[in-house]
Amino acid sequence: MTIGKKNNSVTIIECAPRDGLSALANRVATAEKAKFIEVLSASGLSAIDCVSFHHPRLNPKHADAELVMERVLKRDGTLYLGLVPDEIGCRRALSTAVDGVVTLMAVSERFQLEMLGQTIKERLNKTIPSIFESARKGGKRINAYIQTAFGCPFTGNVQPAQVIDMAARLAYLGADRISFVDNPGMATPKQVKGLMTEVLQLGMEVEISVHFHDTRGAALANCIAAYEVGIRSFDTAVGGLSRALIGAPTTDIGRSNIPTEDLVHVFETMGVSTGIDLDALLRSVEMAEKLAGAPLPGHILRAGANLNLPLQKPN
Amino acid sequence: MTIGKKNNSVTIIECAPRDGLSALANRVATAEKAKFIEVLSASGLSAIDCVSFHHPRLNPKHADAELVMERVLKRDGTLYLGLVPDEIGCRRALSTAVDGVVTLMAVSERFQLEMLGQTIKERLNKTIPSIFESARKGGKRINAYIQTAFGCPFTGNVQPAQVIDMAARLAYLGADRISFVDNPGMATPKQVKGLMTEVLQLGMEVEISVHFHDTRGAALANCIAAYEVGIRSFDTAVGGLSRALIGAPTTDIGRSNIPTEDLVHVFETMGVSTGIDLDALLRSVEMAEKLAGAPLPGHILRAGANLNLPLQKPN
Repeated sequence: MTIGKKNNSVTIIECAPRDGLSALANRVATAEKAKFIEVLSASGLSAIDCVSFHHPRLNPKHADAELVMERVLKRDGTLYLGLVPDEIGCRRALSTAVDGVVTLMAVSERFQLEMLGQTIKERLNKTIPSIFESARKGGKRINAYIQTAFGCPFTGNVQPAQVIDMAARLAYLGADRISFVDNPGMATPKQVKGLMTEVLQLGMEVEISVHFHDTRGAALANCIAAYEVGIRSFDTAVGGLSRALIGAPTTDIGRSNIPTEDLVHVFETMGVSTGIDLDALLRSVEMAEKLAGAPLPGHILRAGANLNLPLQKPN
Repeated sequence: MTIGKKNNSVTIIECAPRDGLSALANRVATAEKAKFIEVLSASGLSAIDCVSFHHPRLNPKHADAELVMERVLKRDGTLYLGLVPDEIGCRRALSTAVDGVVTLMAVSERFQLEMLGQTIKERLNKTIPSIFESARKGGKRINAYIQTAFGCPFTGNVQPAQVIDMAARLAYLGADRISFVDNPGMATPKQVKGLMTEVLQLGMEVEISVHFHDTRGAALANCIAAYEVGIRSFDTAVGGLSRALIGAPTTDIGRSNIPTEDLVHVFETMGVSTGIDLDALLRSVEMAEKLAGAPLPGHILRAGANLNLPLQKPN
């Protein structure tokens, strides 16, 4: 349980293999994907979002999800996750070696309809309970994303009360972890502190995580804000590699996930333990840049670690 | 006086004309520099660091400092500043229309010797008092930079007690504003809160400002941390344009100043008033990109403002 922890260690959930690789123009070979996941896990990451079980027509880049999970050499201490958009995706996930499923559920009705093709009512009353039940029976951990938790790209503000209700409902249905997602990158540190304080006050027996996009440059500040009110679990992607980079030049860093190495670096410099070996993590950033064929937005690979960290490089 | 203000408005000091334009490979024409400063001031910025009075051999890009200040149409409500590295530079500044001078003083002896060619003792006992006295007699405001306030790129950690002593000394000598500079981009939010709390507790009758570099991705988080403990003045540069971009590809965003528009945007979204018109500010980001001939690291020009702000654009 990670609720409102007062201690100073955090959990990082790496999303680049699932959220990032599908962003690339080129198709990445199954063996390369498996290798990337292995290089990531070697750094000590405790959870990796590896694949998506979307219908191959909707997300052809992940058509080999089962093959990737067959190929990956799993490491003890790392949880391997797969995104399941629907019941069919969940059934596929159950046949693989993933340790947990990741489900999507938006607070904004408009976002839900546009991105998931269902109303909130349909999804929350039928699809989600059905996925959760299958996953539980299949012995998989359940990770729930609350999308548009900090605002909707179509309609702007969302009501915090709705986000809280959604979280309580997903916890009641059996989620092991709930991650609050800022899809449009609209969140501010002040907003994060307010909402996450309310969430933690629910006292749910669920791991609470945050997932920020750096669309407007505030993602790392938002992570620090969440940490300061007691959040100890964060979704990130090495290099900032993420779906949002589709079709965008790499200088358009606007829509990327927060680079794992930047967050690990600032936490470790502040004495907050991530359990991750930064040098090993930087090898996976290098691999991500090689797969992307371009520099990614993360800072630490080029800047080197802070001189005050033991594992430093010349500045 | 801006010490530990409890109210929610902030002051932004724009550094791109001085810190940024000298970074460009190409030489910017005097008229273009003046125009850039005018476009910036039109957004409502209360202070702009415009030129440097370095010896033209050391900083040829600012050889036309006097001509720039002659050309600029000054706007009421904006302070126009010029960097003076030494007494000769100060004498030059006094002959121009700048409202204030900016002086440099490092906490790290090694940095001082390498970058300013003086020991701390020489500089603090002779050069700085002499510059301050000339500036005061000339009716100019005195802005003092404490360099390496959060760490030295050569030697790592600095002692907070030394930074505090330096601040007290500069205040005693008559500085109107003291800005704490993180040259190597090593600061963390935790460190910022600690040091700036100590600084504010001195109760000095001086405006206290922070100047972060985004070398490791934490600059905006550091500004928010400073704000949370009571700092209300921030040094930034539109687009992130800064000296650190010299010779670096623009995708190497590591060493840039914090983009003015990103900080203004997050503050305004949180209800913190900057006094700056974001739309007008974005015109100066466009001009900065045109002068640089390349996209700059700032997010808001491409991402658009948050939907929840009145001045929004479609996301």
